[in-house]
Amino acid sequence: MARTCRAAIVPEPGAPLEIRDVEIPELVSGSALMKVANAGVCGTDVHLWHGRLAGVPYPLILGHEVVGTIESVKPGGIQDLDGNEIQEGDRVAFHDVVDTCYSCWYCLVAKAPTKCPNRFVYGITLDSTKWPFLIGGYSEYMYLKPRTQIMKIPDHVSFDDAIFAGCALPTAVHAVTRSPIRWGSSVAVQGAGPVGLMLVILAKINGARTITAIDQAPDRLKMAKTLGATHTLNIQETSLEERSDFLRDISEGHGPDIVYEATGNALAVPEGIELVREGGTYTICGQYTDSGTVEVNPHYMNRKHLDIRTVWGSETTHVYQALRTIGDNCDRFAFKDLVTHKFSLADAQSALEVQQKQESIKAVIQPNE
Amino acid sequence: MARTCRAAIVPEPGAPLEIRDVEIPELVSGSALMKVANAGVCGTDVHLWHGRLAGVPYPLILGHEVVGTIESVKPGGIQDLDGNEIQEGDRVAFHDVVDTCYSCWYCLVAKAPTKCPNRFVYGITLDSTKWPFLIGGYSEYMYLKPRTQIMKIPDHVSFDDAIFAGCALPTAVHAVTRSPIRWGSSVAVQGAGPVGLMLVILAKINGARTITAIDQAPDRLKMAKTLGATHTLNIQETSLEERSDFLRDISEGHGPDIVYEATGNALAVPEGIELVREGGTYTICGQYTDSGTVEVNPHYMNRKHLDIRTVWGSETTHVYQALRTIGDNCDRFAFKDLVTHKFSLADAQSALEVQQKQESIKAVIQPNE
Amino acid sequence: MARTCRAAIVPEPGAPLEIRDVEIPELVSGSALMKVANAGVCGTDVHLWHGRLAGVPYPLILGHEVVGTIESVKPGGIQDLDGNEIQEGDRVAFHDVVDTCYSCWYCLVAKAPTKCPNRFVYGITLDSTKWPFLIGGYSEYMYLKPRTQIMKIPDHVSFDDAIFAGCALPTAVHAVTRSPIRWGSSVAVQGAGPVGLMLVILAKINGARTITAIDQAPDRLKMAKTLGATHTLNIQETSLEERSDFLRDISEGHGPDIVYEATGNALAVPEGIELVREGGTYTICGQYTDSGTVEVNPHYMNRKHLDIRTVWGSETTHVYQALRTIGDNCDRFAFKDLVTHKFSLADAQSALEVQQKQESIKAVIQPNE
Amino acid sequence: MARTCRAAIVPEPGAPLEIRDVEIPELVSGSALMKVANAGVCGTDVHLWHGRLAGVPYPLILGHEVVGTIESVKPGGIQDLDGNEIQEGDRVAFHDVVDTCYSCWYCLVAKAPTKCPNRFVYGITLDSTKWPFLIGGYSEYMYLKPRTQIMKIPDHVSFDDAIFAGCALPTAVHAVTRSPIRWGSSVAVQGAGPVGLMLVILAKINGARTITAIDQAPDRLKMAKTLGATHTLNIQETSLEERSDFLRDISEGHGPDIVYEATGNALAVPEGIELVREGGTYTICGQYTDSGTVEVNPHYMNRKHLDIRTVWGSETTHVYQALRTIGDNCDRFAFKDLVTHKFSLADAQSALEVQQKQESIKAVIQPNE
Repeated sequence: MARTCRAAIVPEPGAPLEIRDVEIPELVSGSALMKVANAGVCGTDVHLWHGRLAGVPYPLILGHEVVGTIESVKPGGIQDLDGNEIQEGDRVAFHDVVDTCYSCWYCLVAKAPTKCPNRFVYGITLDSTKWPFLIGGYSEYMYLKPRTQIMKIPDHVSFDDAIFAGCALPTAVHAVTRSPIRWGSSVAVQGAGPVGLMLVILAKINGARTITAIDQAPDRLKMAKTLGATHTLNIQETSLEERSDFLRDISEGHGPDIVYEATGNALAVPEGIELVREGGTYTICGQYTDSGTVEVNPHYMNRKHLDIRTVWGSETTHVYQALRTIGDNCDRFAFKDLVTHKFSLADAQSALEVQQKQESIKAVIQPNE
Repeated sequence: MARTCRAAIVPEPGAPLEIRDVEIPELVSGSALMKVANAGVCGTDVHLWHGRLAGVPYPLILGHEVVGTIESVKPGGIQDLDGNEIQEGDRVAFHDVVDTCYSCWYCLVAKAPTKCPNRFVYGITLDSTKWPFLIGGYSEYMYLKPRTQIMKIPDHVSFDDAIFAGCALPTAVHAVTRSPIRWGSSVAVQGAGPVGLMLVILAKINGARTITAIDQAPDRLKMAKTLGATHTLNIQETSLEERSDFLRDISEGHGPDIVYEATGNALAVPEGIELVREGGTYTICGQYTDSGTVEVNPHYMNRKHLDIRTVWGSETTHVYQALRTIGDNCDRFAFKDLVTHKFSLADAQSALEVQQKQESIKAVIQPNE
Repeated sequence: MARTCRAAIVPEPGAPLEIRDVEIPELVSGSALMKVANAGVCGTDVHLWHGRLAGVPYPLILGHEVVGTIESVKPGGIQDLDGNEIQEGDRVAFHDVVDTCYSCWYCLVAKAPTKCPNRFVYGITLDSTKWPFLIGGYSEYMYLKPRTQIMKIPDHVSFDDAIFAGCALPTAVHAVTRSPIRWGSSVAVQGAGPVGLMLVILAKINGARTITAIDQAPDRLKMAKTLGATHTLNIQETSLEERSDFLRDISEGHGPDIVYEATGNALAVPEGIELVREGGTYTICGQYTDSGTVEVNPHYMNRKHLDIRTVWGSETTHVYQALRTIGDNCDRFAFKDLVTHKFSLADAQSALEVQQKQESIKAVIQPNE
Repeated sequence: MARTCRAAIVPEPGAPLEIRDVEIPELVSGSALMKVANAGVCGTDVHLWHGRLAGVPYPLILGHEVVGTIESVKPGGIQDLDGNEIQEGDRVAFHDVVDTCYSCWYCLVAKAPTKCPNRFVYGITLDSTKWPFLIGGYSEYMYLKPRTQIMKIPDHVSFDDAIFAGCALPTAVHAVTRSPIRWGSSVAVQGAGPVGLMLVILAKINGARTITAIDQAPDRLKMAKTLGATHTLNIQETSLEERSDFLRDISEGHGPDIVYEATGNALAVPEGIELVREGGTYTICGQYTDSGTVEVNPHYMNRKHLDIRTVWGSETTHVYQALRTIGDNCDRFAFKDLVTHKFSLADAQSALEVQQKQESIKAVIQPNE
């Protein structure tokens, strides 16, 4: 008789989550079974729940930011990027994107593997009705397919710290990889949600001189300050002109060298173009869902002599570096304090609602608690 | 009694040009007097005539794209970038931007000398009522101030070839410097005016595989084809969807690796973002005057994982490379055939009108003919 | 009864080649059988014959530069990088490196897949005593394993043109990718063997202003001139000082912006450091076997403010671009004229000897002629 | 009657320093007179004393690392890079290189202003027998010529902190600019003198994961540890093989991503090539005088797929960033503790001798104490 475990399932777009029993498949060579410790609740999960993304198969098991413990693995089967064998009992994170082919034009010629058409994402585009079924983190167990990049969590890093290696920090790592922060530079970050806060941390680690977080939620701005932001700007309390003036005042009149966008709000983009200094770099990594069009002035953009970069998805290296960054810096930055809400599997529905209302910074589901 | 020469002067914004006698100042150390052969009529000149640019002093002598012959220079006074002495009788071009300070934050720290606040431009921001008066090319003589970068035109290069080193080609050189063309890549150029045609030539010289020129003027597209464009698209005869499909069809389904904007029309920008391939580079260098705002979709931009670069002004090196590019390639590309209209100084007014109607590709004024 | 074909085999280092019958294995999913048209004889083959490389299993079937015709493939089994299906009768080239894992630190984090410890090379490190046996091009047939990157040769490209996509041109493509050639720049190439000649062609395609080939063989220098070198220097007829002076004389006194090394002779390296201009780039891609140590002066290097890059192996993209470069340019550059010698399989031994004496530019073995 | 001040002068190579009275010239527009607080004693000063550098005019006033107080300046005469006016009483540093022309091919086309042939260096290549005479820091006063880049020292930064903006830190800034340190990477620094220690600090500020200082002086290695080195290696106590193994052990078996050379010893170069990881970056910035040739193996270099960069001189931006780096970080890093020896002007000779014996980390001369 097949073993099963419980998972929270979105039966169809917009419908309430249901807790169902799902079959745990036998392991094949190179695969592993993970007991889920924390499944992060991502803003994208809310969009998925409402069916706002194309190409997503329902019924769906949500959860692409996941950490846990290896329950079983065939011996000698899996090595991590550092050449260590993944073993039972290992506490692990993994790259939620799987099946990047490294055989196509985007992977090998354009060197843009996040645009590979063959990739799938756990908890988003993998189909829970097909083998290996347990493809999302809102579940007691996840089945990690062959070629999933599994990474060991260092002993001194808690699951609450490590959850940020699941999505928020890799996104920020990718953004900073595309637009590196020179030490001593002025940085502004639009949005102080999980991605924005990770950008604040990376700006701090990279020796930025000023780091200004911009948001409307006082608690998020306060957290940004705790994590190293030198200044904060509340968009409810200031005008664009005031923000622009402020940012110039703290950078010898120039404005920030780099502005990162991590808001998910289309209106942030014309503001970012306005805020960044002449000859500066504007990096957009938060526009993951369509929030409509905005007006920009091409002449103004041209005159400013800008680099504007948009950043899609994450590569394995970004997850690898994210986990190392947490391991190297969790004494300095209290990642785990950003986990403001915890839910059982049965309360997964509530977790989505809390996330939707933006009451949490990071909510997690703990299916085995 | 002071020597004088004739110059065409814009007395005030919008007023007809007047031919006046202007004093020829004595040379100071490091300066030179140039007898003007060709003064190019730039689209910007029309905007200047109408007073559409801020910070421009009137009365104004237009003409920032200028080639001619050195009439006089103090011996030992001026060396070009290659260390050769500039002498009487030399046929020369020069960098129209002067007084870039190389002492300010933009010049030395940001390394964005085209944003130097101290720079002046012959024929645009230099004041014709102050020494040295002869600051524009719509004049029998120009006075080249100390520290003007003067460059010798090779013997085999005609003044009609060399005029493109004045503004169009340096702009294109700057754009290609910021967004280099890898040999074998797919390039599209929006706009087939002087800058766009120069981009076609540079794409050809750099070994692009496909070069698609996009414009609405059949004669300009025909010229693009002559200069090396592999394909042309007339925006009057095709829809955006057709253009997008066409560009994908000729690049294994991806779209162009690089799109250059050289139109001066704000609407080109959202189209360029649409046309460039995922992970590609969009480079804006034609938005020199304000033609209003346009709508863009930040989510669409983000998903495409783009580099977008805007390019302002030209540095001395771009003029230097432009002149060398003409010298090395004027047998292969008939730059001089792009000079479609020639005017005497007395007809400078007509030259502006022809340019305004876009009847010319490149019109020049020949004040000494 | 198993099918067999004939292959030329190095039984052990230094021993004469033997023609043996080798089993043709059944195809597995994703594999293909190729009928060999041309197997290029590479300088490395001579070193392999003499047993000078570590990690090479004998008996060995040589031949890592190979083009031919698909004899059989399972339907739907293989797609090329452009998404086209590989079919029987297709004329193809392939990336000789296989099994790059895209799962290790070098592949994914360092992004240096040519340093992947898991990769194998047809005709060099694959073992001919193990499945699939037919692992080198000195054979009537080759067995192309799953995940071998197979690429279609365009109809207008002959097998003699295409053979340069096997090794020489991808090496040059990799070198130029690491050290791009700006149009209008001065380039020098040390060594006018196959790799050096490909660098001359790439310099030409990329719009170099001067291209100076340096070698000791008059016929190779003559070929370099035919392919686009603007100048040649014979090291038997000139001193280092003369070469250095000459290169400065043709570049306004500076020396070449980029020097590529493609000699295989260690002594070329200190000379290259001497020849390149101050602030220039020296790129070493020809030191594939150990020819001993040389003396360099670190102070001299430091004062010159140099970039020195060394280039190991080739990625799939370099082969892909090489084949496209040939397809796009074989009318302009007579690649096929560089195939100076052709041998039957029975004469494979003679082919190695001709290569060893450097009598050929490119010799090929045609096992089915 | 002309005003004079006392200066320590090298009358001719190798001769003892003499204290002489030197004329203080009148200020011209754009110049300033500085009362010297600290003149750093650089390793180069010892070489200059012995006459080991070409192109140096004697008698010579040494001292190119200098900080002090503005004694007099014509009003409105000088602005710093941030647009602030330099005034009497300002505590300042300055870029020791003056007269970089920004008019030549190296400055404008090659963008390698440290190779500008027109530049002069205070205390090294300026002639003390010609106006403005007071061209070195071993003097009560220095005359700062027009176009000298003068920078204000923040109030909270002592002269002992600021002296590192004179030469050691700009050199390190230039090296890190050419070879940026990615956060989380492994760095090794050869040499723990002033430049090496500044590289340790910059590696720390940039978020390096491991920073290994390599030297033979226990006190310097101890200082490196204090400043943030995670590990040290004493070359007297370890073999090259042990150092190489150690560095691999602390970086998952790869070796350091970046190795910086700051030793002045030619033998460091082959060791650095050995220590850096495959695909890594080796940056040479310490070979300022000729210490002979060394043997390297080009095949070994080629196989490692390296970037090797050599770094000559400093630009104004490097001094500007150095001073800001000190201002932003002098609470975290005790720059001033590296000033281990202080001398009066009369003891300048002793200062050189202490430096020659490498007894100091940084010795300074205080001509007005």
